[in-house]
Amino acid sequence: MKKKKKVNAAILIIGNEILSGRTQDKNVAFICNWLNLNCGITVSEVRIIPDVEKIIISNIRILSKEFNYVITTGGIGPTHDDITAQSISKAFKIKYGYHKEAFKILENYYGKEKFNDGRKKMAKMPITAKLIYNPSSAAPGFKIKNVLSLPGVPSILNSMIENCKKFLVKGSIIHSSTINLFTVESNISKQLSTLQKKYKKDVDIGSYPFFRLGKIGVSVVSRSISKKKLLNVSKDLMKAVKSKKIKILKI
Amino acid sequence: MKKKKKVNAAILIIGNEILSGRTQDKNVAFICNWLNLNCGITVSEVRIIPDVEKIIISNIRILSKEFNYVITTGGIGPTHDDITAQSISKAFKIKYGYHKEAFKILENYYGKEKFNDGRKKMAKMPITAKLIYNPSSAAPGFKIKNVLSLPGVPSILNSMIENCKKFLVKGSIIHSSTINLFTVESNISKQLSTLQKKYKKDVDIGSYPFFRLGKIGVSVVSRSISKKKLLNVSKDLMKAVKSKKIKILKI
Repeated sequence: MKKKKKVNAAILIIGNEILSGRTQDKNVAFICNWLNLNCGITVSEVRIIPDVEKIIISNIRILSKEFNYVITTGGIGPTHDDITAQSISKAFKIKYGYHKEAFKILENYYGKEKFNDGRKKMAKMPITAKLIYNPSSAAPGFKIKNVLSLPGVPSILNSMIENCKKFLVKGSIIHSSTINLFTVESNISKQLSTLQKKYKKDVDIGSYPFFRLGKIGVSVVSRSISKKKLLNVSKDLMKAVKSKKIKILKI
Repeated sequence: MKKKKKVNAAILIIGNEILSGRTQDKNVAFICNWLNLNCGITVSEVRIIPDVEKIIISNIRILSKEFNYVITTGGIGPTHDDITAQSISKAFKIKYGYHKEAFKILENYYGKEKFNDGRKKMAKMPITAKLIYNPSSAAPGFKIKNVLSLPGVPSILNSMIENCKKFLVKGSIIHSSTINLFTVESNISKQLSTLQKKYKKDVDIGSYPFFRLGKIGVSVVSRSISKKKLLNVSKDLMKAVKSKKIKILKI
């Protein structure tokens, strides 16, 4: 078996609009999926925090120490409540100012006349940062130490995510397999528990209720870096399911 | 002006399925809105963590000290990966076992014959907890110290949320007002910054880009416990908008 290479990340969502309930976050699921499938990076924690400098600073310091990478979203736009870049500069004690390359990109994009103070602000960041290019609206994200900062608007973030790849060391891709059963969790909980014990080291088994086609069911999701182990779990599970005469939902 | 009463909360989302990107979280926005509008409670932080006992324990200890309330979601079902109740018991060093009232509720609901071990597990929790009743699927949530534990399935959580009210001390309701402008953020950032400085203590002003009717725009959202202050912000903002000849999107 190939040696397991674990790489993990935290996501830090910065934005009052998420905490007030005004905006439904869509970035967490997108980033988690992308990191998993494209980079073999597991997201181990997500935090959502307000636009408050000292809170951003303390979270950046804690998470960047604890995890291989930190992905931040939000707070890198042109307005007064966009304080992510300056807060990260302070967290790492790196000078905050105009980033030469970012300044040029934005000046070219807007043209000298329309390059006002608000737009110039988007070129300000830790001055030694590397840029994460933005194909949809020019204003770049940035990478400093093990922190990658992206904007909060999902469509823009999505267009930039591939440009993060070069900054990330790949881990082992985690594969998953799902079996949907027409039963209730409590009817299969004993068997799942036995199965999880048997594959303790290699496979994570989760069970999630669903409601589909007017019936209650359970999705059993197994996750592992070993496709073979996943196959073995599926075989064992199918035996248990057969002996209990549980129907399977085929999709 | 009425004295401001600040009550805050943290939300702790417990579940590998959110961190893997398999499941799009819907509970954060729902709970944030509900706490805001019904209880005047501000959500100050959200964390999403995996189903790992020591991580749950350490987060419960940290968040329950730091905030007035902690709302957890997920991990109180019948399967092996549901370890929220036992982890919270350990965090507070309170005995984990069958909760008499919860046991009776579930036994009544399923009938003695169908009350199997998986289902019995849902009656296990910190034994001195108070129950949060569940009108949709019987298995109760619970409240222990300042922590309220709810299930992760959104439809069930939504049906239970009103039953949390009696455990929560109300804060001052935070009102909000939104003005949608057909402009870009950088065109109004200076004015917003001035406005935020003027109302620093009393109003939080945020600006959020939107794309609607084929045009780019900015939603300016002001939030305050004082309706009067909100009105003043709106008046000042409208003056600035007029002087810049920015169009408003009326909905």
